[in-house]
Amino acid sequence: MADDEPEFFTVVPPDESVRREALDRHDLLTKPAGSLGRIEELGCWIAACQGQCPPVPFARPRVVIFAGDHGIAAKGVSAYPSEVTAQMVANFLAGGAAINVLAATAGASVRVVDMSVDSAEMPDEVGKFKVRRGSGSIDVEDALTEDEVRAAIAAGKAIADEEVDNGTDLLVAGDMGIGNSTPAAVLIAALTGSEPVAVVGRGTGIDDRGWMRKAAAIRDGLRRARPVSADPVALLRTVAGADIAAMTAFLAQAAVRRTPVILDGLIAGAAAMVAAELAPGASNWWVAGHRSSEPAHKLVLDQLDLKPLLELDMRLGEGSGAAAAIPLLAMACRILAEMATFSDAGVAGPAE
Amino acid sequence: MADDEPEFFTVVPPDESVRREALDRHDLLTKPAGSLGRIEELGCWIAACQGQCPPVPFARPRVVIFAGDHGIAAKGVSAYPSEVTAQMVANFLAGGAAINVLAATAGASVRVVDMSVDSAEMPDEVGKFKVRRGSGSIDVEDALTEDEVRAAIAAGKAIADEEVDNGTDLLVAGDMGIGNSTPAAVLIAALTGSEPVAVVGRGTGIDDRGWMRKAAAIRDGLRRARPVSADPVALLRTVAGADIAAMTAFLAQAAVRRTPVILDGLIAGAAAMVAAELAPGASNWWVAGHRSSEPAHKLVLDQLDLKPLLELDMRLGEGSGAAAAIPLLAMACRILAEMATFSDAGVAGPAE
Repeated sequence: MADDEPEFFTVVPPDESVRREALDRHDLLTKPAGSLGRIEELGCWIAACQGQCPPVPFARPRVVIFAGDHGIAAKGVSAYPSEVTAQMVANFLAGGAAINVLAATAGASVRVVDMSVDSAEMPDEVGKFKVRRGSGSIDVEDALTEDEVRAAIAAGKAIADEEVDNGTDLLVAGDMGIGNSTPAAVLIAALTGSEPVAVVGRGTGIDDRGWMRKAAAIRDGLRRARPVSADPVALLRTVAGADIAAMTAFLAQAAVRRTPVILDGLIAGAAAMVAAELAPGASNWWVAGHRSSEPAHKLVLDQLDLKPLLELDMRLGEGSGAAAAIPLLAMACRILAEMATFSDAGVAGPAE
Repeated sequence: MADDEPEFFTVVPPDESVRREALDRHDLLTKPAGSLGRIEELGCWIAACQGQCPPVPFARPRVVIFAGDHGIAAKGVSAYPSEVTAQMVANFLAGGAAINVLAATAGASVRVVDMSVDSAEMPDEVGKFKVRRGSGSIDVEDALTEDEVRAAIAAGKAIADEEVDNGTDLLVAGDMGIGNSTPAAVLIAALTGSEPVAVVGRGTGIDDRGWMRKAAAIRDGLRRARPVSADPVALLRTVAGADIAAMTAFLAQAAVRRTPVILDGLIAGAAAMVAAELAPGASNWWVAGHRSSEPAHKLVLDQLDLKPLLELDMRLGEGSGAAAAIPLLAMACRILAEMATFSDAGVAGPAE
């Protein structure tokens, strides 16, 4: 790919020397070395991402929700009708959804982007990057055209740039879209070489017959995905959708822009796997907020070699599992920034 | 035990009918039923504890740290010298310890109580309930006299009452005391019928020789504990200490006063096990904030049938692992209190 193509991402890793500085600083703070476990690891990672030790407490954590409908929903793969996608966008804007409450509790704001909601009546404020109404039904057709996938990628990149330019210092990518766990499952199966049955989950809560329909849809989508699985852009075009394609580019560009990301569950995980192909090294800028109860999410975490912070049997999407982990990152950061050292506090260190 | 004895606790369970009301309310909120997993369970429990659905967001979460020294520390069971206990109390009051940072991030305040710190120069503000300077060396003598254990229990009870009377609506019990993981391990071994080697952990980070000294101390303490293990007050007197005895009564009285508690790790877990003996049913008022990396903590969680919210390899004490979980409880509460219902938001429910 040439430099001027929208899908070109160059990622540099977080600053390893600052990470070591943070590791050393932890030993000076008034607690036994290592006694805060993963909170210490997280703090070192945040310092490395920020390139400074101690790191600065997050000023502007932000959840960006990528909304889109999926043609495959018409095949009965979800417990909910497609209208719910647009209705939930309105609910996000009104502040009534789970992610609004979780983000508010964690001190984060929420932005919604309509990439491909199947409704003509979407509020103007969310439609700037809209690519189409509903992505194609991936069991029988491509999710997007070549132009559309490039537009979605450019949108995700632009949204990440807008956020970072506006001072966002911690990002969560959320999803909203009835049927979106089907393309996510296909992407995960394609990139991990898994069989359909290993990636079919209950999504929003389908019954056994819905599960069978979903398994068949994933099987058909996967048959279409496998020939292009080595080409991330072609994979997004064939079996993702504008919402997931934009989220993929957003995750890749966040890494380019040296901004830490908390990954959510299945949908964000699928996008992250593609983003890691598109932008090698991007996963160094991500932490896994939680492990979803969707079975395929484990494949994502294994493949990306990420250990989740939370395991609370959540499976909502919207960025909810990542938002629930924001306070842990805030704590990790503030521990390094605010705790007293042994010498400052006049506390004796361990006996020799 | 008679009604007028300090160690008498009568616990009524959280309100089961309100818990069911909260469970039903979760199905009306704009998310797939059950999709927030343990966040939903937590919310139902909080509603049941408060006796109202939706529950009210926590107004005054509070960490109470019980500080005390232990004679057994002189036997080389800790990596740190005993002076650190008093030094850390000063650090808590100055706001420089890990618990201060974690609590502040979670919107909680911190109170420190000196039950038995081995120092004559403790600040007045923390000494109101002080029982003695350092508890006895439990390998060879009782931790406390009969009068002292009753004073410590009365103190824990009074502290819980003070907190609840002042409007505290969510409690964390923290610990500070060099050597305190040895009496905690003895209590856990005595109440679970475990061998010393199953409960010896690295505490603040002892080396292999320290580990052997600690194992021997636990063995000797356990020999003294076993004959009284069926009598919780005698057990506290024999092998706990004023800090752990007060924390035990505090946890029991919090349940009496219908106030939810987030349990921390090893020390709070040991106190909780004794409190569950002293106040049957008290564990219904507790949630496990985390699983400590101390091996004996797993025995506590199994015995109390509590599933931890976090598993982050923390082993600091001070209430740190519980404080890290406060935001999850705040989220669980606010989800029930603030989310829109399907009908309010005009969102379609699942297809029939």
